[in-house]
Amino acid sequence: MGEDTTDELMRATYCALCKHGFADLTMQDIADESSKSKATLHYHYDSKRDLLVAFLDYLYERFKERVAASGGETPSEQLLAFVDAVMTPPPRDRQEEFQTAILEIKAQAPYEDDFRERLARFDELVYDRVLTIVAAGVEDGTFSADVDPGMVASFFVTVVSGAHTRHVVEGRQPEGTVEALAEYVESKLLADDAEGKGLSAE
Amino acid sequence: MGEDTTDELMRATYCALCKHGFADLTMQDIADESSKSKATLHYHYDSKRDLLVAFLDYLYERFKERVAASGGETPSEQLLAFVDAVMTPPPRDRQEEFQTAILEIKAQAPYEDDFRERLARFDELVYDRVLTIVAAGVEDGTFSADVDPGMVASFFVTVVSGAHTRHVVEGRQPEGTVEALAEYVESKLLADDAEGKGLSAE
Repeated sequence: MGEDTTDELMRATYCALCKHGFADLTMQDIADESSKSKATLHYHYDSKRDLLVAFLDYLYERFKERVAASGGETPSEQLLAFVDAVMTPPPRDRQEEFQTAILEIKAQAPYEDDFRERLARFDELVYDRVLTIVAAGVEDGTFSADVDPGMVASFFVTVVSGAHTRHVVEGRQPEGTVEALAEYVESKLLADDAEGKGLSAE
Repeated sequence: MGEDTTDELMRATYCALCKHGFADLTMQDIADESSKSKATLHYHYDSKRDLLVAFLDYLYERFKERVAASGGETPSEQLLAFVDAVMTPPPRDRQEEFQTAILEIKAQAPYEDDFRERLARFDELVYDRVLTIVAAGVEDGTFSADVDPGMVASFFVTVVSGAHTRHVVEGRQPEGTVEALAEYVESKLLADDAEGKGLSAE
């Protein structure tokens, strides 16, 4: 399958998920959002599940590219730029509906190992990146020596996951999550003699 | 409807949700878990949605009772006892399946205002209780004067929500969430001269 066709089918899957949600989604719904027939979809993907697994892979690649580009000089700045990139996806059509469909897919994880495995990759990416930044910050003395990078990384994954769920349930991004994480970095992670180097200097 | 019948139907709803999940649940599935007929269920509840709204109300009352009993002397202890009560539900049959069904219901919130409203009450209870404890702690000098109780309360709601979602997606309670919150309370909230009063003393 050419890259253009893949892109078209992935965009069609996005639109169909936003319109119909996950539970009621059919291959026909996805075909309807593209120039391809349902038969063509079935030629490339055996089932709706296979197509959605490919869609999660596609989303993951884009997520990886997007968050890789987050900058920052000091470990504190890197951490907050990364969190900001993770928490504020690029403006897209039907963002709310899309987030809702993703939460529906998360609720299927216990029944579909392929979904669970793909969803885990997003969390692992967040975990690994936070772990790397925090460990480097402990190493160079920006962060306190008694900070446990693994615990901080897992905590960040939990906060990101909670912000997503609350966004769906409440219909809006919960206020202050990024600010709360910024305060967490400042008060919990920064070494006492490093406050001037990090956020407090801003 | 007598209290016994309500209890029986709520327990039947719990079992049916665990077995069938939310999306495929029917009134017949719920009737099958009770001694009542589907006709009796329909006599008391117009629709599956109405029954689930009653079920969420029922869960909320139990949740309220359970977390109200969490103790603690100092504000730090109260906060952590509360978080512990919220994060560790009583052992129940099919806990994993139940948490999954609740996540499915959360993903319906954008389409069902009654669900959204009921789900919001759980978050509001957590928010209000954390707000009250933190505000009291700031007042009595246990917590720093520059702690913003509203931001802390919202952050706790996000963390609790994230722990629930990760539990479903990963099939296990994320490790270290309660410990991470305990460290957060210790390093971010406690006033510098109050460290001996709180967790550090344990």
